[in-house]
Formats: sequence, C-alpha cells, structure tokens
Amino acid sequence: MSLPFNNLEVFISAPVPPCQDDEYEEAALGVANIGENFSKITINRPKVGDNDVKFDVKFCGMCHTDVHMVCNDFASTMYPIVPGHELVGVVSEVGSNVTRVKVGSLVAVGCTIDSCMECDMCDAGEENYCRKGGHTHTYNSKKTHGHIGGNQETQNFGGYSKSEVVHERFIVTLPDNTPLAKAAPLVCAGITMWDPLRHWGATKGDKKMKIGVAGIGGLGTMGIKIAAALGHEVVAISRNDKKKDIAEEKGAHHYIDMSDTKSINEHNDSMDLILNTICAPHSVSKYLGLLRTNGTLVQLGAVATPLDFVNFSLLPQRKSIAGSMVGGLKSLQECVDFCVEKEIYPDIEIIDSGKVDEVYVKLAEGNSSAVRYVLDIEASL
Amino acid sequence: MSLPFNNLEVFISAPVPPCQDDEYEEAALGVANIGENFSKITINRPKVGDNDVKFDVKFCGMCHTDVHMVCNDFASTMYPIVPGHELVGVVSEVGSNVTRVKVGSLVAVGCTIDSCMECDMCDAGEENYCRKGGHTHTYNSKKTHGHIGGNQETQNFGGYSKSEVVHERFIVTLPDNTPLAKAAPLVCAGITMWDPLRHWGATKGDKKMKIGVAGIGGLGTMGIKIAAALGHEVVAISRNDKKKDIAEEKGAHHYIDMSDTKSINEHNDSMDLILNTICAPHSVSKYLGLLRTNGTLVQLGAVATPLDFVNFSLLPQRKSIAGSMVGGLKSLQECVDFCVEKEIYPDIEIIDSGKVDEVYVKLAEGNSSAVRYVLDIEASL
Repeated sequence: MSLPFNNLEVFISAPVPPCQDDEYEEAALGVANIGENFSKITINRPKVGDNDVKFDVKFCGMCHTDVHMVCNDFASTMYPIVPGHELVGVVSEVGSNVTRVKVGSLVAVGCTIDSCMECDMCDAGEENYCRKGGHTHTYNSKKTHGHIGGNQETQNFGGYSKSEVVHERFIVTLPDNTPLAKAAPLVCAGITMWDPLRHWGATKGDKKMKIGVAGIGGLGTMGIKIAAALGHEVVAISRNDKKKDIAEEKGAHHYIDMSDTKSINEHNDSMDLILNTICAPHSVSKYLGLLRTNGTLVQLGAVATPLDFVNFSLLPQRKSIAGSMVGGLKSLQECVDFCVEKEIYPDIEIIDSGKVDEVYVKLAEGNSSAVRYVLDIEASL
Repeated sequence: MSLPFNNLEVFISAPVPPCQDDEYEEAALGVANIGENFSKITINRPKVGDNDVKFDVKFCGMCHTDVHMVCNDFASTMYPIVPGHELVGVVSEVGSNVTRVKVGSLVAVGCTIDSCMECDMCDAGEENYCRKGGHTHTYNSKKTHGHIGGNQETQNFGGYSKSEVVHERFIVTLPDNTPLAKAAPLVCAGITMWDPLRHWGATKGDKKMKIGVAGIGGLGTMGIKIAAALGHEVVAISRNDKKKDIAEEKGAHHYIDMSDTKSINEHNDSMDLILNTICAPHSVSKYLGLLRTNGTLVQLGAVATPLDFVNFSLLPQRKSIAGSMVGGLKSLQECVDFCVEKEIYPDIEIIDSGKVDEVYVKLAEGNSSAVRYVLDIEASL
C-alpha cells in the first residue's frame, strides 16, 4: 500500500545533518523521501533550554493536514517529514525558568510551537495569528522566531517521535486524570472548533445562540459536542441526509439536509454563527441564507475553489463570512480545560506504526466515519 | 431627455387613492408612471399623530439608489414614485408626545422611517437591521410596522415633496447653524460610511487604525473625510490612478492604484478595515490581501456579480468579509453630530426640478465627479 503523493517534481529535500552539541538524537516515525512509506528514522531535537519543557510523547493524533503535508499536496513539503501536531505526554525535564509544569506533569502540544512573543496578537494569547510572519507550525517549518534551540538551519519535526522539547509558552497543561489518547485531538480538532466559538462570543456569558455546524466529520462532531455543552441550540448541517443519526447522537438539536429545500427553509434567517468544516467545493450562498442579521459564517475547510456569493447576501442584514485557523495558547488551554472537565472527547481509534500507511490512505480518500486516529507512540517506537 | 427605465414589463401600478380623513394632500415631484419623466404630482401624507413630527422639507439629496428605484432596475418599483431619502427641513408641527424637537427645529430624515421598535436590533438603535422583516424604507415601501399613519394600504413617498410626517424616533436633530443643503447627504452617504466605522470599532476610543476606502466617488470621499477626521491613517484605493489628486485633497494619506502591483505591495497585509464602495464588478481577492490579521473588508456596493476569493484568503489571518447598509438612528445621530461639528460635508451641487431628469440620466451613466446633487424643494414645488 503506497501513500498517495502529489506534485512529485516539486518538493524540498532537507536531510537531517549531524547532531550538534546542543541537540540530541531521537527515534521518530516519518517519511524519509517523497514516494516512500513511513519508516523509523532518526531526528535531532534541541536540548532543553532555560525556558523549555521536554516530555515523553505518549500519543499523537492524526489530522488530515498531516496527510496533505506528508503527501506534498501543497508542493512545499520538506523531506524527511515527521508529522503530528496533536501531542500528549509526560514531562521528563524542565529548564531553570519553567514554572507551569514539573517532571511528571501531563502536557499537550498543538499546532503552534513558536511565535514572535512581542506583537499584539501574541500579547493577547493569539500566537497562531502572530503578526510577524505567522506562528511556527509544529513540524515541517523553519525556526524563524528564535525560541527553538538546536541547529537553526534545520526544519522542526512533529509528534510521531519518542520525545519533544518545546518552549513553556506553547505547553498546554492537563489534569492528572486526563485520558491521554482521547485528549490528543483536543489540541487541533478541538481548538479548531473552540476558537471561533470563543472569538464570536459563544464561550463566555449567558447569551444563548443558535449555532450551525456544517460538515459532520471529525471537526463537525467536535463542534456539535462543544457547542451543545456550552448550552447553545445546535443545528447540524450536511450536504445530504446520511449523517442525521450521528449528528443527533453527538448532541445536535436539529439537522438540515442541504439538498432539501424544505429542510433549509425551516432554519433560514435564524442562526447567529455557522462553523463550516466542509472541505469539498460547495455553494456558500445557501449557507449565508441560514444566518440571521449580524450572523457570521466561519470557513474552516481547505476548499480551493472560489466562493460563490454576491454582495446582496451580506449587505441587508450585515452578515459576515470569515476564516479561522486553530487558536492561540490562551484559547487552547481554555478549550482543553473545558473539554476535560465536561468529558468531551472525539471518537478515537488507537493504532500503532504498522497501520499508519493504511490510515493515511484511508484519510486521503475521505474519512466518512468521523473517527480520529491516534498513534500509540510507545507501541510504535 | 428620457429616463433610462428597465424591466418595462415588470413593475407595480399603485395609483394614489382619494385622500382619507387622517391624511392631507401634498405637492411632490415624482414619476407618475414607468416611461414618464419627473412631474409635479399630488400625494397623500398622514396627518400628525401623537408621536409624529411634521416638517417643511427644504432640501433633499439625490442618491444612486433613487435612480435604481425610479428606473425600476430591481423590477419592483411601485408607480407613482416620489424618491428621496436625504431630507432636511424645519419642524412645522409636533404630536402631543414629542419631546425631542419643537416647531422651528432643524431636522433630517434618512433611509429608515419605521421598524418594529421591539427586537434587540431596534433596542440597540440599529433599526435599519430590524429583525422583524427589516426596516421600512423612506419611500416605495408598504407600511408594515404600524407606526406610519394614514391609509395603510398605500405605499409611502420620499423627500421630493413640500412636507413630510415621521415618527419622532426616526427624526435626526440638527444644530441651528447647520448648513441644510450640505447636511442632507449626511443621512445616507454619510451614515453609509460612518456606521461600518462605528461597528468595527473606529469611532470610539484611542485606537488608531489603518483604514482603506475603496472607490473614490461620493461615498468614498465621505469615507476618507470621516476616517481622517477620526484620526486614522487613511488609504484611498482605486482601480486606476485617476483619482489620486481628489483622494489626497479629501484627506487620504496614501493612494493605491489597484492596477499597479508595486502600489498594492506597499500596503499588503497592513489594513485593519477596508470600506469598499466599488459598484462595478471587481476581484476582491486583491483587496483581501491588503488586510492584516483580524482585518475586515466591508462591502457597501451593489455589485451583482459573484465575489471571487478562496478560503485561504481568509483562514490563515482570520480575515472577514462583511456587508453593511446605512445605519440605525443612534449611529445616524452620532454621524450627523460629528460631521456638523467637524464641518465634514460632501461636495454638493444644488439643483431645482428643471434639472432632475438630466441629473438622473447623468447618475445612471456613472457620476465620476463625486458631487452629490441636492434638490432645492422650495425652488422646485
């Protein structure tokens, strides 16, 4: 079974150089070169600096973004690549300035691993929207902001690895009783849904909103669970009628089949916020019609086709269409605290390294089951 | 010279019925039937109710929307039509409950003349976004909300008329020294620019923003003047280099010629807010690129072609695209107070009834001069 690579002529070759004095060698599961399957490789991690936290990675969730990156879908992947931005584990060492965790603490790391730490967005805890060139993603990124140690010329590597070293600022703390495997996807799938709810006013205060969640996959089911747990009226929105049972099981109060005009009309002009996770091309005009005055449609999916709506879909009722991408550390800690307290977790399936290639092929083909796959690191490396 | 009518087969014929006891006859300038030019006609106005204000209309501004409506561009015009939603005048009579004005007060009326007065949007002074079916426009609307007197089966008539009667709630007060003709366009052109500035945080507080104003016509020049007077850094954005002098004369600090990549690149990823008044089809993707993280592009123009951008223009920096249409009474009073105090007025040309047809033809062809035409009612009727 081969991974479905793309753009075979356009990628970056960035072999791991010899380990420096300020680095250590670590075992990882990665794709060494374009065209190859996953295999055990050796990477270099920075040694623990004064502000760093080192932890043993126990589990790492698998996100569709990992598939895009490993398969070079954006023609920008640096090989070798070690994916994974849903890391959970146990702290094994801390730098002298670290105050938030100690050896033995349970921690998580999500999609952001560095930022400028100086701009107003970073000051607001929204490091994912760092104004100085954006945040540093957890893998396949250059070390541009200066807070990641080791060889500054190399890319960073993700969570399919026995250990990781991260600046304390980007560490999420977990209560001691957290079920680690289930919690892993909270720091990507969870925050992707939580942060737009937070930004558009749905996580604080007593205001009850009518919230739509479009696309009933891994993200959408998390969105339904979180929005319902926050006490909102939740409408699951799907392009057909196949996801009705799963949506209601996850807590949706209503279901719209967007292929059925009657179903749409029952909820037109009624929603305050729609979180749209649909990744396939689709007409957003009909979704804008579901919003009531002052409502916002938040686009979360990687749809590459142009959106198709006219100004009159927005003007008369001051509607907005916006984008959102994961969330900053403040929001991330809130999300994890909320979900762990309320026991809101995605449906997961734990796998080991023997099944990674197969899972990637399945995800590339479209994961209709809405299950999040989580890699058991100890069983894999 | 004939007016450029459209949709000649699809319009509504709504002749003025006999005057009721709770109405009075009034002289107006209107278009009696589709295909005809402006002429003096007689309309019925409601007599003054307990909450109403009657005023002698002194001037009425001419908006491009008036041209759309008179010429049946949306295939929904009721004839006869008396346009005009930029009324200024002097109060001649007040109902027993009226407290805000007295006989002799200077007043203005804009685009909103009734609303439900009960929903949360009305409570917030945003009657233009009334949730119960929207506001009642100043002319060519049915009396749906119940606060306009007279024959409830008839449409209402706009400001090209010797007097008007309006519920006190929809009256804007003007200081005694207000130059009436110049002030008329503030209640449409002014508020259309003020309200999005207000909604997106640019009219309160000390936060200085970088604000783009796209389209340097009647709306755009008002936007430049107001945003500059509020102390913001203002960028005029045009599709070519022809408006540079006028934009800088109105107070713009920078100018972008969107046909020149170098000019665009100097301001990419830098603006907090863009007010886009362009009415012609254009690619919004490039305008979204001008926004910095968290920025909003506000669409104000009646562009009927689909917008063309992809999700990736929004997601990585949480950008938004929104619509806005005029403003509520709270915002409208703030706008007028601010503009009169700062002496911010559009460039106007006063005309009388003899030139109305000619001006409508000119506006329909595109008013490149950015001058707002204002009808002198006393000289016309």
